[in-house]
Formats: sequence, structure tokens, C-alpha cells
Amino acid sequence: MPKALILLADGTEEMEFTITYDTLVRAGVSCASAYVPAEGDTDGGFSNPPAARGSRGINILPDMYFSPQECTPDHFDLLVIPGGAKGAETISSSSPVQHLVREFLNEGKFVGMICAGSLAAKTSGLPKQPLTSHPSVKSHLEDDFEYSEEPVVVSGQLVTSRGPGTTFPFALTLVELLCGAEKRREVAGPMVFPPGTFA
Amino acid sequence: MPKALILLADGTEEMEFTITYDTLVRAGVSCASAYVPAEGDTDGGFSNPPAARGSRGINILPDMYFSPQECTPDHFDLLVIPGGAKGAETISSSSPVQHLVREFLNEGKFVGMICAGSLAAKTSGLPKQPLTSHPSVKSHLEDDFEYSEEPVVVSGQLVTSRGPGTTFPFALTLVELLCGAEKRREVAGPMVFPPGTFA
Repeated sequence: MPKALILLADGTEEMEFTITYDTLVRAGVSCASAYVPAEGDTDGGFSNPPAARGSRGINILPDMYFSPQECTPDHFDLLVIPGGAKGAETISSSSPVQHLVREFLNEGKFVGMICAGSLAAKTSGLPKQPLTSHPSVKSHLEDDFEYSEEPVVVSGQLVTSRGPGTTFPFALTLVELLCGAEKRREVAGPMVFPPGTFA
Repeated sequence: MPKALILLADGTEEMEFTITYDTLVRAGVSCASAYVPAEGDTDGGFSNPPAARGSRGINILPDMYFSPQECTPDHFDLLVIPGGAKGAETISSSSPVQHLVREFLNEGKFVGMICAGSLAAKTSGLPKQPLTSHPSVKSHLEDDFEYSEEPVVVSGQLVTSRGPGTTFPFALTLVELLCGAEKRREVAGPMVFPPGTFA
């Protein structure tokens, strides 16, 4: 069973987080959400992370703290970085996360970034390649990447996407890459997409 | 500012809950999530509800307990019942919720039901009218309603929809009904729907 690590911080876009996690679980992917504290926050000495307050006020309990020991390419097949301006800033400016992005790609594992989460491609120092993001952060990325406005861009093991409205095709693309095209169809059917959209 | 009450229980489909709540917040609608305990569960004497465990394992902290005193058409303009088989069963079999559905409609307020959440139309004893639901519960509804397979069905103040894949058009329809067509367009733009889908 493939395993996915989905990062979460205060200010994460809760639709992008939830659609990706839920769709992967529907495909039989084992998902863990890991909380990345904002710079200067400590873990408060608790073993369980606090609720992450999403960009529109939904409070989600992460499954674990982000930890460089437990969050490695040995433990997971896919790393996902959702958007939401504040959450993406926290996650993409974390040097352990930047290290992890490089490690995943070096070991041939998948990395998904969506919306402002694509900023992590730049902060992690990834080489110039095709990429997309939320239009609001395009200006930060277009010089360093082959910027695309496609809903989902697959560049080797790096998968990027644009915003809440492209999260279903983003998540279904990740399902296809991890589990195959037949699993994608099997998962999409019961989600009842309107005819002509993502099914 | 319009106000929406979005019900939540263990087993609620977390994409349907999150997309609806988040999209309404983007439109300036004040949202409150209210936890409906499963039958036999008590509130444990705590003033704050526990995390609701979604149908695919995401734990969401509700804003409040469902309470017949605080959850009334005087306090809210819209009531939403999401799907997820187990969550929808808990919510639709609650007699205070059934009473509230009738009260909202009697007072000309909006009620949204999606996926298995549409079962609440039947358990609340609503009159025969156009309605849709997740295909998995169609057989429970097709004799009592004018069953449709459209992604979103508006019947007076009752708005129904089909599943995770129709939640964006469901939520945007609720935005349009509460806040107007221009607000719908304003909200949809930054969500970056792929061309030809919901924008």
C-alpha cells in the first residue's frame, strides 16, 4: 500500500488539504498529515500537535508533528505541500521541509505542490522545469521555472497544480501515478463528477 | 452578513463539509459547524464538542454542539447537511435536526443537502419535489421525490446535490442564492477552476 505524507500548518487551504488526503485514502493510499509549526513556535512539550487553523477557519487535527526522523522517503512514497498563503509560507520556508523535498526527488519519490505550495519548489532550490501554481504567486516563480497555466503539471516526479478548483484533478493525477489509471477511474466514479469535468 | 449552519458528525464526508464551509466563508458568509452526536452518545459534560472523525479519517474540530436553542432559523439563513454514509445517518435520524429542516423551510430559509445528506429530506417528511442525492441512496428517495440526476437541484429553498465531485457547484449555487450571481463569480475566480468546469 503506497504511503503519503501531507503537510499542514496554520493557514493551510483546507479544501486543498482535505480533497488530496481524502481522494488518496479512497484509492487505498495510507495518508498521514504532519503539522509544521510556524517559525518561533515550539511544540509546547506535547506529543500531539495542536489543531491547524485553516485559511478559512476550519480546525483540523494533524495526525503527527513533522519530524525529520519520521518524515523520510523511507517511510513515504509521496510528499504533498498544499497552499493557503500563510500555511505555504510556513511550510516552504522550513529548511527541514526543503531538505525533505530534495531527498524525495533524489530518491525517485513523488512530490506534489499545489497553489502557493509551489513556492517550495523555489525555496528548495529545484532545477528549472515545468511547473504551475496559484496565479497570485506566479511572479515569484516564472523566472526560475518553465511556468505553465495547465491545471496540473507533471515534471518527472514533481506534480504541481493551481488552486482549490484544480485539486480534484491534482489528487486524481497523484492516484494515477501511485496506483495506476484503473484505480483513478475506480475512485472517480463514486465521487460523481458532473459530466464533462474530471471523471 | 448571511449566516450558515453546517452540520457535522462522525463519518461526515470531509470534502463535502470542507468545500461548502470554505467556499461560503470566501463569499463573506459567517459559518458555524455544529456537531451532532451519534444516538446514545452524550456530550460527556464538556462544553466543547470532540473532533468529528470524517469518513476518510480527517479529524475536524466543530465550532459548537448542535443545540435546538442555538441552532434556529432566527440565528441562521442556511442549513447544510453533508453526506458520508455514517454521518448522514446520524444527522438525518436526529429528530431535532428533522424539526429544524422543517422550520428553516417554513420560514423561507435555505436548506442544502448533499450526497447521502439528502436522506434528511425523507426523514424530515418533506413533500414530494425535485431532488438529487448520491446514487447509492437513490433507491431510498426515488419513490418519495421527483428524483433528478442533475449535479445540483434547486427546489424552492431546498438545494440538493450528489457527491464530492458536485460540491463545488453546490457550494457556488448556495453562494449565488445567498449573495448573488456577481459574488459567485468573484468567489470562483481565485479558486482557479479548469477552463470549462465550474467557473
